[in-house]
Amino acid sequence: MIQYKKMAVSAAFVAFICSGVIAQKKQFTIMEATNGMSTTLAPQSIKNASWQPGTDNLWQTEKKDGQDLWKMQSFNKKSENVSYILSEGNYPEQVTAIPVIKWLNDHEVYFVNGKNVLVGSKDNDVILSAFKWQIFASLPEKADHITVDKSKEIAYTIDNNLWFWSKGKGAIAVTAESDKNVVCGQSVHRDEFGIDHGIFFSPKGNYLAYYRMDQTMVKDYPIIKWDATPASVDIIKYPMAGGTSHEVTLCVYDPASGKTVTLQTGTKNKDHYLTCVTWSPDEQYIYLAILNRGQDHLWLNKYDAHTGEKVATLFEETDPKYVHPTHSLSFVPGRSDEFIWWSERDGYEHLYLYNTGGKLIRQLTKGNWVVNELAGFDKEDNKVIITAAKESPLEKHIYSVNLRNGDTKRIDKGAGMHTALCSEDGKYVLDVYSGAGIPKNTVVRATDGSYSHELIKAANTLADYDRPEIKDITITAADGVTPLYGKLILPTHFDKTKKYPVIVYLYNGPNVQLIHHSFPESGNLWYEYMAQHGYIVFSIDGRGSWNRGKDFEQATFRHLGDAEMADQMKGVDYLKSLPYVDANRMGIHGWSFGGFMTTNIMLKHPGVFKCAVAGGPVMDWKMYEVMYTERYMDTPDENPEGYENANLLDKVKALKGKLMLIHGTNDNTVVWQHSIDFLKKSVDENIQVDYFVYPGYEHNVRGKDRAHLMQKISNYFDDNLK
Amino acid sequence: MIQYKKMAVSAAFVAFICSGVIAQKKQFTIMEATNGMSTTLAPQSIKNASWQPGTDNLWQTEKKDGQDLWKMQSFNKKSENVSYILSEGNYPEQVTAIPVIKWLNDHEVYFVNGKNVLVGSKDNDVILSAFKWQIFASLPEKADHITVDKSKEIAYTIDNNLWFWSKGKGAIAVTAESDKNVVCGQSVHRDEFGIDHGIFFSPKGNYLAYYRMDQTMVKDYPIIKWDATPASVDIIKYPMAGGTSHEVTLCVYDPASGKTVTLQTGTKNKDHYLTCVTWSPDEQYIYLAILNRGQDHLWLNKYDAHTGEKVATLFEETDPKYVHPTHSLSFVPGRSDEFIWWSERDGYEHLYLYNTGGKLIRQLTKGNWVVNELAGFDKEDNKVIITAAKESPLEKHIYSVNLRNGDTKRIDKGAGMHTALCSEDGKYVLDVYSGAGIPKNTVVRATDGSYSHELIKAANTLADYDRPEIKDITITAADGVTPLYGKLILPTHFDKTKKYPVIVYLYNGPNVQLIHHSFPESGNLWYEYMAQHGYIVFSIDGRGSWNRGKDFEQATFRHLGDAEMADQMKGVDYLKSLPYVDANRMGIHGWSFGGFMTTNIMLKHPGVFKCAVAGGPVMDWKMYEVMYTERYMDTPDENPEGYENANLLDKVKALKGKLMLIHGTNDNTVVWQHSIDFLKKSVDENIQVDYFVYPGYEHNVRGKDRAHLMQKISNYFDDNLK
Repeated sequence: MIQYKKMAVSAAFVAFICSGVIAQKKQFTIMEATNGMSTTLAPQSIKNASWQPGTDNLWQTEKKDGQDLWKMQSFNKKSENVSYILSEGNYPEQVTAIPVIKWLNDHEVYFVNGKNVLVGSKDNDVILSAFKWQIFASLPEKADHITVDKSKEIAYTIDNNLWFWSKGKGAIAVTAESDKNVVCGQSVHRDEFGIDHGIFFSPKGNYLAYYRMDQTMVKDYPIIKWDATPASVDIIKYPMAGGTSHEVTLCVYDPASGKTVTLQTGTKNKDHYLTCVTWSPDEQYIYLAILNRGQDHLWLNKYDAHTGEKVATLFEETDPKYVHPTHSLSFVPGRSDEFIWWSERDGYEHLYLYNTGGKLIRQLTKGNWVVNELAGFDKEDNKVIITAAKESPLEKHIYSVNLRNGDTKRIDKGAGMHTALCSEDGKYVLDVYSGAGIPKNTVVRATDGSYSHELIKAANTLADYDRPEIKDITITAADGVTPLYGKLILPTHFDKTKKYPVIVYLYNGPNVQLIHHSFPESGNLWYEYMAQHGYIVFSIDGRGSWNRGKDFEQATFRHLGDAEMADQMKGVDYLKSLPYVDANRMGIHGWSFGGFMTTNIMLKHPGVFKCAVAGGPVMDWKMYEVMYTERYMDTPDENPEGYENANLLDKVKALKGKLMLIHGTNDNTVVWQHSIDFLKKSVDENIQVDYFVYPGYEHNVRGKDRAHLMQKISNYFDDNLK
Repeated sequence: MIQYKKMAVSAAFVAFICSGVIAQKKQFTIMEATNGMSTTLAPQSIKNASWQPGTDNLWQTEKKDGQDLWKMQSFNKKSENVSYILSEGNYPEQVTAIPVIKWLNDHEVYFVNGKNVLVGSKDNDVILSAFKWQIFASLPEKADHITVDKSKEIAYTIDNNLWFWSKGKGAIAVTAESDKNVVCGQSVHRDEFGIDHGIFFSPKGNYLAYYRMDQTMVKDYPIIKWDATPASVDIIKYPMAGGTSHEVTLCVYDPASGKTVTLQTGTKNKDHYLTCVTWSPDEQYIYLAILNRGQDHLWLNKYDAHTGEKVATLFEETDPKYVHPTHSLSFVPGRSDEFIWWSERDGYEHLYLYNTGGKLIRQLTKGNWVVNELAGFDKEDNKVIITAAKESPLEKHIYSVNLRNGDTKRIDKGAGMHTALCSEDGKYVLDVYSGAGIPKNTVVRATDGSYSHELIKAANTLADYDRPEIKDITITAADGVTPLYGKLILPTHFDKTKKYPVIVYLYNGPNVQLIHHSFPESGNLWYEYMAQHGYIVFSIDGRGSWNRGKDFEQATFRHLGDAEMADQMKGVDYLKSLPYVDANRMGIHGWSFGGFMTTNIMLKHPGVFKCAVAGGPVMDWKMYEVMYTERYMDTPDENPEGYENANLLDKVKALKGKLMLIHGTNDNTVVWQHSIDFLKKSVDENIQVDYFVYPGYEHNVRGKDRAHLMQKISNYFDDNLK
C-alpha cells in the first residue's frame, strides 16, 4: 500500500473539472442520470447530418417552432451562408417524425418508413426547392433488413429467406429455404468480425451478394416470450464455445438471369468464418477474408463473382493468439486495383495499402496508437481521412493520411473525442466533438486545413447541476509497466477529512473502452448522481480492454478474468491509498463482461467489496458463444484450465458480502442460464445472493426502463454501503 | 380500534404454553426451524405402521443399533406382548433403506424398489418367521405410476401410455396413443376433486379401469429445464381459467379378452369432470361423479363396466355456488348395495349412507362440524371409523359412527390432532396424536373403547430450546359474527413494555387450515425462530379457509381476496391494539394463495405493512388453472368484475413499502409468468420490487434448500423491519 501511494502521487494526472460548491444547484433525477445526456440534457447538436453527393452542401433536420417539421438546411462553405428549405407542404402524410434520409444521388433521397420505401426528388435549384415524395415501393408486412441500392432496387428478408424487388419486375424470391434454420440475407457469425448485415449490392447495383447461414446443426436454446398469455417459447440456435457451429457461405444473385452462384469457399472446415465481404468496383470479383475456426489464420481471397471460383489468395495473416478482422476492404476511389486493409499485425490497428495482386504498396499509418475509423477519401489529393487515438488513447482526432507517402496531418482542433462525417469528395468533414469543458462543438472543416466554420457551440446543459469533482487518474498495471487510465469522481461537497463509500464501475473486456476525454467529464451522469449521493466513483480500463493495441488486449488470452482482475485490484490498491476512502464500504458494478468481472472479483477476492451488482454476467465461458469466446479462450478442450479458472459457477462458496445479479429474461447474448445456474449453485451451497430480472429485455435494459434499473442498482448500494 | 380492543379482550382465548425464560437454552438454527420437526427434532413415533390383514397384529419398522435393518415388530393386544422379528439375513440386496411395504394378504407383502416389484412371503408362524423375498417383476426403465393389485397383477405407465403386466403373460400395452398429449393411466383434472391417480383395479383384480385424458386442445405453456446445458424446454398443457380445457373419459380394460370399453359419459360438454371413480364390489359396475364445468351440478352415475353403458343416475347434487366432490364411494364391507357418500349439502362435509338404488338410507353424521377422514369399518358392529373436527375446528379426533342409527362415539383421548390407522376388521385404531404439551403420543385403541395401550410417549425434542410464549387467539371476522382462530407468538424474553416488529404469516385460501392444536404449539418452528430473533409472529385463518364448513369457505365466491383480506385486516386491527406491537414495523409473508394474499394486501392496503414476501404468488386468476379457479371465481367471461378486482398486475402502482417475490423457475402450478408479469408491470410503472427464483423448483422449495429459502425470507425481514 505504501509503495502504491508513491506511484499514485507521481503518476496521477489530476484534472479539476467542476467545483460544484454552490449549494443551490440541482441534483440529477435518476432519469436524468440515466438517459439525460441523450434526451433532456443533450447538448445542442446537428441532427441527421448528411453531405449532398457531388456538392459541399451539408444537410440536416431541425425542430422549428416546437414542431417536428420536415426541414433541411444547407451550408455552403464558399458563401458561409445558411439557407433554409421549409418543406411543411410536401411532408409525406404517413410519416410522423423526421426520418433519417439517405442520398441516392445529388438530387434524390430515400427513407424507409415501416414497410414503405419513400423516394424524394428535388428540382435543380438546390437551395429553394422542396423534395417531392412518392411511395416508391410497398413491401410485405414481414419484410425486414430492407436494403435500398443506389439503383433503387431493393433487397429484404421475409423470415429466413431473401427477396429482391425492382420497379420493373416487382418482388422475386431469391431463396426458398424451407428450414427456418437456414438463414439468408442476414448478419452471420453473431455479429462478430465487424459483420452487421447480410445483403451486399454490387457497386452498380447489377448483382446481389448475400450471406447464407446453415445453423441446423447448432444446438437449440429456448427463449421464453413473456409478452403473450400464456407465454410461448422461441427456440434459437446458440452455438456454445467448443460446440458444433453454424456453416456460412456467400452467394451471388444475378437478377438479370435469375441465377445464383455460391462462392467456393471450401468444403472442409465449414465452420470457418467469412468476413470483410467486398465487391470489386467493376463488379467482377468479391473479396472475402476467411478466418479459420481457431481464429489464428486469415486468408484474404478473391473470388469470381459470376462463377464462384476462387481466383487468388492475396495474402495471409497469422497470429500465435488470434487475428481479429473487423473491416471490409476500402477501394481507393477511381482505382479498381488498390484498396486499404486494416490489420493489427504490427501490434496496433493500422491501415495498409494493397493492390489487388496482393502486393503491399505501403503501410499507411504506423505507431503505438490505433486507427479508429476510415471516414472517407480525398480523391483529388490522394488522401484518406481517418479518426485515430494518435494523441492519446483517451482522445480521438481526425487526420488526413497521404496514400502515396503516409504523411499524416491532424485536421481537427480541440482536445477530446471527435467524430468525422466526410463529404463525398473528401474536401470537408463535419467534426462533432466534446471534451473536458466542451459539451459539444459542431464544426465544418476543410480537410486541407484551409477553412473551418463553427456551426454550433453547445451550451453546457449541466451548468445548473451540482456536479462533482472529477479526476483523471493514471496508475500502473499489475505488470508493473503499463499505464492504465481511469477516473475518480469525488462526492459533491467533498470534505477530504471524511471517509466515503466507493463504487467501482468496470467492464474491462475486449472491444470496449470506458475512459475518454469527453463530456460529461465523468463519462456517465450516473456516476455523478452517485457522487451527489455521497459516493466516490472509480473506473479504470485494465489490460484486455480496447484501443491500446494488441499486446494490451491479448494479455488476457486463454485466461479471461485474470490480468483484468489483477489490474482492477491495482485500482483497489490506489483507492485504499486515499485517506478519504472508506475501504470497508466499497461496492462494485458491471454488466456483461463487467458482470463477469464483478462476480469474479467477489469470488476470488472475497471481502474486498462489501457489495456488488453484476448485470447480464457471463458465469461460465462454456456457455458463451463460439465466435467471441474461442477467440479469447480457445475451446474448452484446448484450454481446460483456462475455462476452469474462469468458471464462476464452481466458486460460489467463496462469496462474502452481498451480490445482486440482474438479467434480461430474453437475453440472447449472455443467455439467462448463466445467472440461473449461478443461483442454483448458490442454493446448493447455501449462499445468499440477490436477484432481479427485466422481463422481455435482451442483453441490455434501454430506454425509460433503464432508469428503473439504475434506481435498483443505486438502492442496492444505498442499502448496503450506507 | 377502541371497539376492537374490547372484542379482543373479551373474545381472546389465551393459552400460555411455554415460558422460555431460561437464558441458556438453545436457539434454533435456520435448518432446524425449517426441517427440524421432520428430521433431527422429530418426536419419537412409529414408522411404516401397518395392520396385518385378518389379525390384530400391528407392524412397524425400526432402526436398530444405528443400522437401517429390515425389522418388524408385532403387537397383539390380547397378550400386550411385544415380539420382534429381526430379519437382517433376508433383507433384499438391492434395497438400501427400509421401504414402506403393503400387504397383499395376511402372509404376503410387497414393495416397489426402483423398477422392481419385490414380494415377501412368510411362514404360517406369524411371530417368529422372517419374510422371504423375491423379485416378482422387473419393469422397464421408464415405468411409472406402478400399481400392484392384490392379485399381483401390475399396471404402470410408460410416458403417456398404460401397460398391464401379469406373471403369466408378461407386459401388454393397454393403450397405444401416439400423441403424447393423450395421457392414459394418470391422474387427471390437475389433481382437483380428490383425484390423485389414474389406475383403478377392480376389487378382485379381474379388470383395470383407467383415466384417459385428451389435452391436445389445451394451450401450451413452456417450462424451461435448466438442469442441462444448454437449457431445453418442456411444453406442458396448462388450461387457464376460461380457456379450452382437456377432455377426460374412463376406460375399462379386460385382460382376459384384451378388450377395452369406454364409459359412455356423454359426447356433449366433454370438458366436464369425472371423479369419485368406484368399482362395485362385484366388479360389474363403476360409479362416477360427473360434475359440470360450471361445478354447480353433480350427477352420481352408475355404468356397466363391461359395456360402458350408463345404468342409472343415483342422485344429483347442486349448489348455487359450487359442489366440491373430493371422495370416492366407500362400500360398506360385505354389502354390495350400500355405500357412504361425502357431501357438504347441509353446510358441512358429512357422511351419507346410500343404497345402490340411489336411495338415501340416512345421514350418518350431522352438526356444525366437518368430517375429515374415513379410516375404516367395523363390519361386525356396523360402524364406520372416522376422524372429524367435532370438538373444535382446531382439533381432530377419532370417532365410531353407527351405520344403523348414526350414533357417534369418540374413541380417542387427549386434546389435539389425532390420526387413525384402522385395522382391517375395524376393531382397533393406531392413534398417533400431538397437542399442546404433547410432542407425539402413539396409542393402540380398541374402537369399542374397551382397551388402549400406549406404545410411545415421545419426549419433548424442543425442551432444550429457547421457546417463545404462544397465545391462541380468537377474533371476530369482518362479517361481525364469525369467530376466527389464530396464534400470536411473542418474542422470546418478551418485555411487554417494549415495542416489537411483527410478521404476519398467512395462506387463507380454500382447502388449507393453518391453525391447529398440535405440536409445536406455534404450528411452525420458523415462527419460533423469528420469535427468537425478536419478532412477534401472527397467523389467522380467515373466511375462505378450510375445515369451517361451506358458508365459511364460500364467503369468498367470485371475489377471491376480498373477504379474506377483510378478515386479515381484522387481524391487523387486533395487532395494532396490542401495546407491545410496533405498527410501523410489520411484515407479511405467504406462499401460493398466501402469496396472492400478501401481494393483494400490499396493493390494496398500502402502508399497513412495511415489507412483504410473496412466494409462488397468483397475480392474475386468468392465468391460474381451470378446475380450481372456475370453482371459486366462475370464468372470466362470467365474472369480469371479480377477475378484475383480483388482478394484481394492474394494481402495481399502488405499492408502498418493500415487496419481495419468490418463484420456483419450474413451477407448473402457479406458472412463472405470474411473477414475471408482475415484475414487468413494476418496471413499466417504475415501482421497485425485489425478486428471487429457485432454479429447478416447482411450486414449493422442499428439502435442504428450504432452509436457504427461509433464510432469505428471514434476512429480508431483518433488513427491512429492524
